[in-house]
Amino acid sequence: MRNSDNPQINTSGELIHLLSIEGLPKAMIHRILDTAETFLSVAERQVKSVPLLRGKSVFNVFFENSTRTRTTFEIAAKRLSADVVNLNIESSSTKKGESLIDTIDNLAAMSADMFVVRHSESGASTFLAQHLNKMHGGNIHVINAGDGRHEHPTQGLLDMFTIRQYKKQFTAIRVAIVGDILHSRVARSNIHALTTLGCPEVRAVGPRTLLPGHLEQMGLKVYNDLLEGIRDVDVIVMLRLQRERMRGALIPSAQEYFKHYGLTVEKLKVAAPNAIVLHPGPMNRGVEIDSMVADGPQSVILKQVTFGIAIRMAVMSILASPKTGEKP
Amino acid sequence: MRNSDNPQINTSGELIHLLSIEGLPKAMIHRILDTAETFLSVAERQVKSVPLLRGKSVFNVFFENSTRTRTTFEIAAKRLSADVVNLNIESSSTKKGESLIDTIDNLAAMSADMFVVRHSESGASTFLAQHLNKMHGGNIHVINAGDGRHEHPTQGLLDMFTIRQYKKQFTAIRVAIVGDILHSRVARSNIHALTTLGCPEVRAVGPRTLLPGHLEQMGLKVYNDLLEGIRDVDVIVMLRLQRERMRGALIPSAQEYFKHYGLTVEKLKVAAPNAIVLHPGPMNRGVEIDSMVADGPQSVILKQVTFGIAIRMAVMSILASPKTGEKP
Amino acid sequence: MRNSDNPQINTSGELIHLLSIEGLPKAMIHRILDTAETFLSVAERQVKSVPLLRGKSVFNVFFENSTRTRTTFEIAAKRLSADVVNLNIESSSTKKGESLIDTIDNLAAMSADMFVVRHSESGASTFLAQHLNKMHGGNIHVINAGDGRHEHPTQGLLDMFTIRQYKKQFTAIRVAIVGDILHSRVARSNIHALTTLGCPEVRAVGPRTLLPGHLEQMGLKVYNDLLEGIRDVDVIVMLRLQRERMRGALIPSAQEYFKHYGLTVEKLKVAAPNAIVLHPGPMNRGVEIDSMVADGPQSVILKQVTFGIAIRMAVMSILASPKTGEKP
Repeated sequence: MRNSDNPQINTSGELIHLLSIEGLPKAMIHRILDTAETFLSVAERQVKSVPLLRGKSVFNVFFENSTRTRTTFEIAAKRLSADVVNLNIESSSTKKGESLIDTIDNLAAMSADMFVVRHSESGASTFLAQHLNKMHGGNIHVINAGDGRHEHPTQGLLDMFTIRQYKKQFTAIRVAIVGDILHSRVARSNIHALTTLGCPEVRAVGPRTLLPGHLEQMGLKVYNDLLEGIRDVDVIVMLRLQRERMRGALIPSAQEYFKHYGLTVEKLKVAAPNAIVLHPGPMNRGVEIDSMVADGPQSVILKQVTFGIAIRMAVMSILASPKTGEKP
Repeated sequence: MRNSDNPQINTSGELIHLLSIEGLPKAMIHRILDTAETFLSVAERQVKSVPLLRGKSVFNVFFENSTRTRTTFEIAAKRLSADVVNLNIESSSTKKGESLIDTIDNLAAMSADMFVVRHSESGASTFLAQHLNKMHGGNIHVINAGDGRHEHPTQGLLDMFTIRQYKKQFTAIRVAIVGDILHSRVARSNIHALTTLGCPEVRAVGPRTLLPGHLEQMGLKVYNDLLEGIRDVDVIVMLRLQRERMRGALIPSAQEYFKHYGLTVEKLKVAAPNAIVLHPGPMNRGVEIDSMVADGPQSVILKQVTFGIAIRMAVMSILASPKTGEKP
Repeated sequence: MRNSDNPQINTSGELIHLLSIEGLPKAMIHRILDTAETFLSVAERQVKSVPLLRGKSVFNVFFENSTRTRTTFEIAAKRLSADVVNLNIESSSTKKGESLIDTIDNLAAMSADMFVVRHSESGASTFLAQHLNKMHGGNIHVINAGDGRHEHPTQGLLDMFTIRQYKKQFTAIRVAIVGDILHSRVARSNIHALTTLGCPEVRAVGPRTLLPGHLEQMGLKVYNDLLEGIRDVDVIVMLRLQRERMRGALIPSAQEYFKHYGLTVEKLKVAAPNAIVLHPGPMNRGVEIDSMVADGPQSVILKQVTFGIAIRMAVMSILASPKTGEKP
């Protein structure tokens, strides 16, 4: 029934969880993007809801607080007519010593259909998916909404959707990912997505202290200089600089960082003429990005948010659709 | 498309936001009160919901925590069949340094239809409405749920609704507003509403330290003595005394305040025989109001709460109704 | 109109609140269990919602935080199509000095249909039900979701449902309740339920410091030795050991407690061959229960959670159904 190496795909090749972009076949990525396209128009209608998940129970289980990300999943689920329950588990029974598995088993016993999970530990959602596969044969679905430094696959997918909307294809573009790649699950998801989709040139740009060691083995070009790194690229993905990195002495100061790696209108000129600028938000204006760029004509940052709802609706509706895969 | 002096009204004279009672035409106030009347009966039905906002997304964005006020808007929106998302932004990404505008732009990009905003800064909701008018041409609506010491217009409207239910008109009544007018957005909204509706006598009653300086220019009669202030009035609006005012040394103590400005059954006798007593809640029993008055036959305090749901449903349904005003 | 001794039953014998198992007639318990049975199948359907509470407003008012219990009621109400509002009152206007009654009166004035109340004070929900009966003639319903050390009636009912599912009857079984009975509202609800349903042998098992004094008068057999206490029983209800009891010096340590009162596979062998093990959750694995038992074939702990949703749907739908009892 299950693929133990890749618990997000069943033996019939159907998506039963969304845990990582790594291991997601190219055709599946395209199917998600195509499905999201159909949901874009829903957001523009007077009545923005469709009954695809009516009577289904979606639990947003956030072991790490993120009002912003939680809201995007809540909105997506409600537009699909699901019942949504938000659980901020920091302040809940884990305080009473209940384990992660016990928490999820309990919610599953309440006839959950889908879990959206954010957790500070890499691999937490994969661990939960494997457990739910074993207990419920793949009928309860997990969406990884960010697990430690590992992946944030819906962010990766919405970034791909954004790129496809503006660039139409992935096979003749140059993409630069700029900033704190070392700590970024967004970067990891994007790198896997771009590689799978056949992007010929993915660049990693940032200070040595914020780049992991294995990037070249993953096929990336590495740049420590911003101007060199974004020269002639079609897409720039700016990453958020966590302020705690400065306390951790990985970078000297916000001012210093902005001077070297902050994207300004002037610097943006070295990229391809119609280059687009993405950022997963929330932005640190004046740290990794100047407001003139963030609010400028090449920024697609708010479009990413809109597309993000459509992507989450797409993923949820694909997961909830009937499966032909054999039952356990 | 927009009226830059008064961003809540479009050039066709239609309500596109509710930001303040100041600047709200008399006919619009009456239209809101009339609409609320039709919703009162909804609350008494077995099925209390109507589909007027089905498929619309209402965001309760509270930068200042208020479970009570947030709940009234949540209930109103749910009874109109809207999808409601609650955001307590104190504990959210503003901590990560995201600006007010970035927060709202992000939520707008999720295809929001309406924002209910509470903020500690006066003018915050007006600022957001102007920004949304510029970005979205008046298609995304803002309701001010209290901004600093400025206004709390739905409270003002529900107070007018309450007065109209009991006194039938505004043009032959005396109204006394009693207490901490200096810090009260409720008082400001009520003063503007009563003035617009043609109330011939509005009195401000309280200690000198809790009355602003410009009241007489606004047409109010000012009293520092409670008995003089409420003598022969038809309506008494008691204000909540914030306990922090005592720490701030604006008043000596709760006991002392109650002795001079606390409304008791005995003192209430000097008002007109059928005078009604309003309070926006939550009450400090034994500070600004005695329980015998709060729970007595002249109190309409719980009626205000019931009417408040109808008023909020009215405002939301008017804002969401199709506009004839030219598009930007 | 009301029965002042037992505010949960009206003079026509109909259930208008669920406050305690004590005072709940046997026929009413069976009616709730039978109704729950019809809702079990709802959870297994593709569309898990039914319109029984459409347009009704259910308020989860938790004066004591419990994400887990609150979620079960939220899910139950949403599956009945009610509008649900969650209020965590710890962090709300009680901080501003508003009284319990004022809080509930305000919510009732918003046209509430049902309150689910958790409170740290024993009797809090009964007090509220009496007040609401007086003010609203039994048309606004209260469900006690745990009040101090008094009762947790929906937990008691779901435990009875679980026992009935596995043992088919109550009149020929032995039940042992094990652990901190002194502080347990779950134990009190279970003892009243089992007694009412005619269970011939209910045992209380635990250290002297965690057993109240009056158990024998209630008809229970008291055991301080676990093996004696569970010998030949058909049902074992394990109670959660609050960790604060250890700080309070009522028991020496978690290790010591586990040695004497922790249920292991070995100890479980002295019970009847098909004995079932219940636990209200969240479990302290390795304190009151070993994981081999918690996850073993005799454990029905996750089934309790599933049944708990059905029980809460049953209670809510019975409370919301039209009453024939005379109006006030």
